[in-house]
Amino acid sequence: MRDFSSDHSMLALNTATLGHNLKGHGAGWSSEQVIEACAERGLGGITFWRREIGTRAIDIGDRVRDAGMQVVGLCRTPFLTGPLALPSRQAILDDFHASIQMTHDLGAPVLTIVTGGVIEGSHSITESLKRVQELVATMAPVAAEANVVLALEPLNPVYGGNRSCLVSVRDAVDMCAAIGADNVQIAIDVYHVWWDTSLASELKRAGRNRIAGYHLCDWLADTTDVLLDRGMMGEGVADLKGIRAAVEDAGYDGYCEVEIFSADNWWKRNPDEVLDTMVDRFRTVC
Amino acid sequence: MRDFSSDHSMLALNTATLGHNLKGHGAGWSSEQVIEACAERGLGGITFWRREIGTRAIDIGDRVRDAGMQVVGLCRTPFLTGPLALPSRQAILDDFHASIQMTHDLGAPVLTIVTGGVIEGSHSITESLKRVQELVATMAPVAAEANVVLALEPLNPVYGGNRSCLVSVRDAVDMCAAIGADNVQIAIDVYHVWWDTSLASELKRAGRNRIAGYHLCDWLADTTDVLLDRGMMGEGVADLKGIRAAVEDAGYDGYCEVEIFSADNWWKRNPDEVLDTMVDRFRTVC
Repeated sequence: MRDFSSDHSMLALNTATLGHNLKGHGAGWSSEQVIEACAERGLGGITFWRREIGTRAIDIGDRVRDAGMQVVGLCRTPFLTGPLALPSRQAILDDFHASIQMTHDLGAPVLTIVTGGVIEGSHSITESLKRVQELVATMAPVAAEANVVLALEPLNPVYGGNRSCLVSVRDAVDMCAAIGADNVQIAIDVYHVWWDTSLASELKRAGRNRIAGYHLCDWLADTTDVLLDRGMMGEGVADLKGIRAAVEDAGYDGYCEVEIFSADNWWKRNPDEVLDTMVDRFRTVC
Repeated sequence: MRDFSSDHSMLALNTATLGHNLKGHGAGWSSEQVIEACAERGLGGITFWRREIGTRAIDIGDRVRDAGMQVVGLCRTPFLTGPLALPSRQAILDDFHASIQMTHDLGAPVLTIVTGGVIEGSHSITESLKRVQELVATMAPVAAEANVVLALEPLNPVYGGNRSCLVSVRDAVDMCAAIGADNVQIAIDVYHVWWDTSLASELKRAGRNRIAGYHLCDWLADTTDVLLDRGMMGEGVADLKGIRAAVEDAGYDGYCEVEIFSADNWWKRNPDEVLDTMVDRFRTVC
């Protein structure tokens, strides 16, 4: 297991930690301010959200690299299934394609997939997973052509209804194997998997080179909102070192990306404080 | 799989469906009113909560049987771990004992265990599960003496922090096997397991005679509250027939108990309407 106690060169910021995933949240820093603040602190990279990139993907990607960092990834594809998905298969594929193109333009290696929930009227998580699998398999060659890895991110089961029919590492591993494309992999997020005692064995089953991302935050014991009340590392109940050990034992040696949705706490603080805390916690409790 | 399309003799009411698990909710019917309304409709039984029983366990149990039904179970033990547990081991064991005694006095066969969350400061779901296992193993002979089955109920992972470190059927099966007492079994609740594609295989792994209860409700795709916004069967995304098939394939032939926490919807309706709807949905979509 890597020792990060005096080294945070593998720490990355997911800009959701500053509220950039949702309009009207956070301090509203520009991408330039975010890049500068991360570079000043010696972070290794940044993951962005599509809404903050707009038409500036090439420019923002270059700025990150000019500042000595990497663009770690892009959040995310459109929902592929369920009540929040676009209305037609073609609209979903078109937007999926646009997200791949943006990832490519940023020079980012990874695009995160959040699958979307259970197909309306189906009452079937299994059927919904099959639809996701078919759509991801369809787009995998398009992503490969653009040098983009698609990272299936299993979400916490609490999102199973509307946001992600993919809610377990087990199902993500099965879907990766079924698709069988080198560039279809898995993202592991502490918030979504902290409870899963089968994590280490499932990641071993996935085989080497199947983990495309590792996301840090914490699960608050008395969470007040399952979407926007994530904890900073160390504030919650997750076994952060144990989870990282499982991820690294399965061969992951990439960035550790901090992604904290926290409307009433961290998003209300000064981003400088958030970034400083994040660096400190990464070195001490992750 | 049993055919309930024209038979609801195996349908049971969990009184939480009428708001009886929380003070100040529901229409406030007396136990006598609940028993009469269930008997009138031909239900097979009732599961109560400790708060509504008080010192009347023997009397209420007799009334249920006099009305031609069974007391199916009692909710529930105290939390055994985590921030909501009583302050000392002895206090927890004493209250655990009291809940076993109440189950016995009611003439109910099953007492549900909700384990409690992650031990404060431990950051370890594994350590918390070990503590639960030790406490349940300690009380299993006491329960056996009282002819009471202890039903470990894995809750949805969203409760992992504060209410239940036991959040997967897999972990419940493992804990049953580790304790190895005939009267330590598992309760399966749709709300908690609907997302788990390993349900059927895990229940097979549990072996025969390990399921002590089956609880019905539905998971609403756009749930607004993870504690008090459960759906009536048919309103949500769960594969109700598929889940029951898995439970029955594993040998369960007992009651199907409707347990719907719904502060802003079903608890605000007339209990007669709730019970009528429940019977109709049980026959048509469960």
